[in-house]
Amino acid sequence: MSYAGLIEVTGRVNDFLNAGSVLSWDARTMMPKAGAGSRSKQLATLAVAARNLLCSDEMKRELDGAEAEVSGTASDSPEARIVAQVREAIDYHERIPTELLRRKTELGAAAHEVWAEAREKADFSLFAPALTTMVDINREMAQAIGFEEHPYDALMYRFEPGTTTAGLKTLFARLREGMIPLVRAIADAEKPHSDFLFRDYPVDAQMQFALKMAKRIGYDTDRGRLDTTVHPFEVSFTRNDVRITTRVATDYMPMSLFGALHEAGHAMYEQGVDPAYTRTPLATDLISLYAVGGVSFGAHESQSRLWENHVGRSRAFWANHMGDIKAAYPGILDDVTDEEFYRAVNRSEPSFIRVEADELTYDFHIMLRAELEAKMVDGSLEVADLPEAWNAAMKEYLGVDVPDDAQGVLQDVHWSSGQIGTFCNYTIGNIMAAQLFDTATSENPGIQTALDGADYAPLRNWLTDKVAQHGRRYTRDELLENATGRALDPEPYIAHLTRKFTDIYALS
Amino acid sequence: MSYAGLIEVTGRVNDFLNAGSVLSWDARTMMPKAGAGSRSKQLATLAVAARNLLCSDEMKRELDGAEAEVSGTASDSPEARIVAQVREAIDYHERIPTELLRRKTELGAAAHEVWAEAREKADFSLFAPALTTMVDINREMAQAIGFEEHPYDALMYRFEPGTTTAGLKTLFARLREGMIPLVRAIADAEKPHSDFLFRDYPVDAQMQFALKMAKRIGYDTDRGRLDTTVHPFEVSFTRNDVRITTRVATDYMPMSLFGALHEAGHAMYEQGVDPAYTRTPLATDLISLYAVGGVSFGAHESQSRLWENHVGRSRAFWANHMGDIKAAYPGILDDVTDEEFYRAVNRSEPSFIRVEADELTYDFHIMLRAELEAKMVDGSLEVADLPEAWNAAMKEYLGVDVPDDAQGVLQDVHWSSGQIGTFCNYTIGNIMAAQLFDTATSENPGIQTALDGADYAPLRNWLTDKVAQHGRRYTRDELLENATGRALDPEPYIAHLTRKFTDIYALS
Repeated sequence: MSYAGLIEVTGRVNDFLNAGSVLSWDARTMMPKAGAGSRSKQLATLAVAARNLLCSDEMKRELDGAEAEVSGTASDSPEARIVAQVREAIDYHERIPTELLRRKTELGAAAHEVWAEAREKADFSLFAPALTTMVDINREMAQAIGFEEHPYDALMYRFEPGTTTAGLKTLFARLREGMIPLVRAIADAEKPHSDFLFRDYPVDAQMQFALKMAKRIGYDTDRGRLDTTVHPFEVSFTRNDVRITTRVATDYMPMSLFGALHEAGHAMYEQGVDPAYTRTPLATDLISLYAVGGVSFGAHESQSRLWENHVGRSRAFWANHMGDIKAAYPGILDDVTDEEFYRAVNRSEPSFIRVEADELTYDFHIMLRAELEAKMVDGSLEVADLPEAWNAAMKEYLGVDVPDDAQGVLQDVHWSSGQIGTFCNYTIGNIMAAQLFDTATSENPGIQTALDGADYAPLRNWLTDKVAQHGRRYTRDELLENATGRALDPEPYIAHLTRKFTDIYALS
Repeated sequence: MSYAGLIEVTGRVNDFLNAGSVLSWDARTMMPKAGAGSRSKQLATLAVAARNLLCSDEMKRELDGAEAEVSGTASDSPEARIVAQVREAIDYHERIPTELLRRKTELGAAAHEVWAEAREKADFSLFAPALTTMVDINREMAQAIGFEEHPYDALMYRFEPGTTTAGLKTLFARLREGMIPLVRAIADAEKPHSDFLFRDYPVDAQMQFALKMAKRIGYDTDRGRLDTTVHPFEVSFTRNDVRITTRVATDYMPMSLFGALHEAGHAMYEQGVDPAYTRTPLATDLISLYAVGGVSFGAHESQSRLWENHVGRSRAFWANHMGDIKAAYPGILDDVTDEEFYRAVNRSEPSFIRVEADELTYDFHIMLRAELEAKMVDGSLEVADLPEAWNAAMKEYLGVDVPDDAQGVLQDVHWSSGQIGTFCNYTIGNIMAAQLFDTATSENPGIQTALDGADYAPLRNWLTDKVAQHGRRYTRDELLENATGRALDPEPYIAHLTRKFTDIYALS
């Protein structure tokens, strides 16, 4: 019945969750397909064990003692925050029946295979029954968790606490106002040529270069590794083992490179968390039951987007590394200048696939998904009608006709694992990335000078200092306030996109 | 409070243990070194969770109900066996004080470092104090577990239930009687030349050929995979995901090949367990707390040795596959006949290191260890006198002078982690392998005919039928009785070695 006791028990919760993360990583990178059935049961048992230990009498006894013990400390001390977060998490999970959690986890693992087959055959009807069940489970979850205005708010709480459907509506409206004129202007402008990105790039050379550049910006491979998967991701098993994956297309090289830079951004967040927080709630998301040091999914995305877009797709980056990439692919890029390369990897064009979308059109894919999810959850859209609604929104936002379900509604892995309410994180991440990068470079001119000289340490150190080291000690908005002096603000993002694309496309 | 309830709770024990196995596999194949600290905590949490769930009130309630429910079924029905095994396992684990387990785990972690340093410096005296404590803890364990005749019996129970020190004494005496004359005769005979095994074999080609041959004898890679590690091993996460590793030396090719055949033998045992037993105690060792379908460590070893030695090191095997291996290593083996190759991979020579020993001399390394362990445990051999006793036995059995402790008493990792009582499994496995192979081929001439024609399905099907499918339903001795009509019998093994080595070495 003490703070030390609380740390011991929450340490075991962290162990269960990290074990689950290892099993999930293995399932996506190494496991033979036949293992899926048993693996889903193992994952379910670990998730239930973590949840039950969190809500156990043992935990509550330690928590009671710890609350008394830390009552004199500052409200934002690590100790006070840990105690408050454990209390909040217990309250949250006790509202969700364990049977519902177990059904969701089991279906999540099994539905992944179903989704993969449906996508391969471009046939949404194969996935519709699983998705219908998944939506129903999520609606039950929302009712159990509770909400003030909209059931979708309850689901987003798990990924991006404090975000509301109403708040997103305002945010999305401002983004559209700022971004649609750019998209329209670019549609009429001459596009940078990018044919050289589609040449034949050997797989091994792509993986070597992707890893080299991930290390170059600061990903520590002594505490990580890079593998290939269908859908790139990052996962940590404490800050000392943070792994990333990317995917490789021989005929489109940027996929492997920017996938790796993106995931390396995520990884550096985890690798930068204060070592003192390892195995504590400040490196454990006790709401989403995921052993992660980042404070929200959007905050996490801010780090990946910042390194991918503000660094990796910058003019300075290619002025510095054009020689490296030419050396990595001998003879393939000899005819390309750094300026041509920079423009090509920033070519903007409406497309069907979110993960292949460019920096400017990406958020429209997100708005579409968040809006459709909210409608499925409040019952105003049936799963059967989803492909039609999807295709209509693609036409409205980006002016494209979706050719089939594989390039439309079936493209994302998220729903197959039961995740509903998480897409907004990507756009919140884009907004945070611009806000943080803007503050970092405007308040510290040395950071931009260093970037111009291919020195990534000053930016990385600033981000570690302002973001990563704190783990989950502060909320996302506290972190933003402390780092930039204000709450989430879309203006630096809109300004960044306007500046960049006006320049590349010579818009007036 | 029912049989179904018991199956549900033991299923979760299996999940925890399988999760631990995935984490162990990952730690040995994929994990960056820096992850070791957190990983050991995660593994400890999973092991304790499995043990505590096994001995929980929830389990006992279900077991009470299940015992009543199955009381009318045959005593060897799967249901009756499951109930009896869960009861036995709870009794076993509750006899061991958690305080003693904690001391053993803590010392195990610390002693490993001490042992590694002692081995590096080839100085046993550095390791002696830790080993003395470890022996004392194991003696306490033996007292807690209980035994009829000899405390070493209690320690072997975890790995090879039913084996006694007295039984081993008789068995070892018979083996020595049969095998020492062979070792002596071979010492004076001309050795097959084997220099071609030490040529430069490319790593990738070795891994491809090892995998090809593992699949060729029947390892199902749709439910498995092959990786490389320092020490080869097999591990299963249910029958649908059974992985093997091997090790590769560019200048000694047989290591990767026979490592893979050996581990494939283990793997086929797990892959052959009745699917109905998945996640039940009939595929979970609740005594050793290891999620395995094999009935004992020795029974498991019988399957690996059978495929490695009785098939992989047979004359027929190389008569059939010499073309395959020549094709796998173009130009490297052109001057070698199948008969020369067969003789080379059966070359026998006394050596110091157990894991490098050949088929004929291997068991002497085992007898030596089991005998010394039993004496340390009953107090008739002081740890300080161990190196002298070790070196004397090596001289007596194999006629060699151990040059230093690193190549002698310090070579194995087992004692540093507190494992005492497991070495006998290897020799019991060798004996069982010969006994099973002898019955299979003598009672079913078609099996040998098929092997002569490189068709491994009839032997594999016989082994699945007689051994693998039963999982842990029958004891090792019941399994042997059912398959061969008699208990463990060393005669087929001695006959096999005599026949094989008399022929290869042209002994009279």
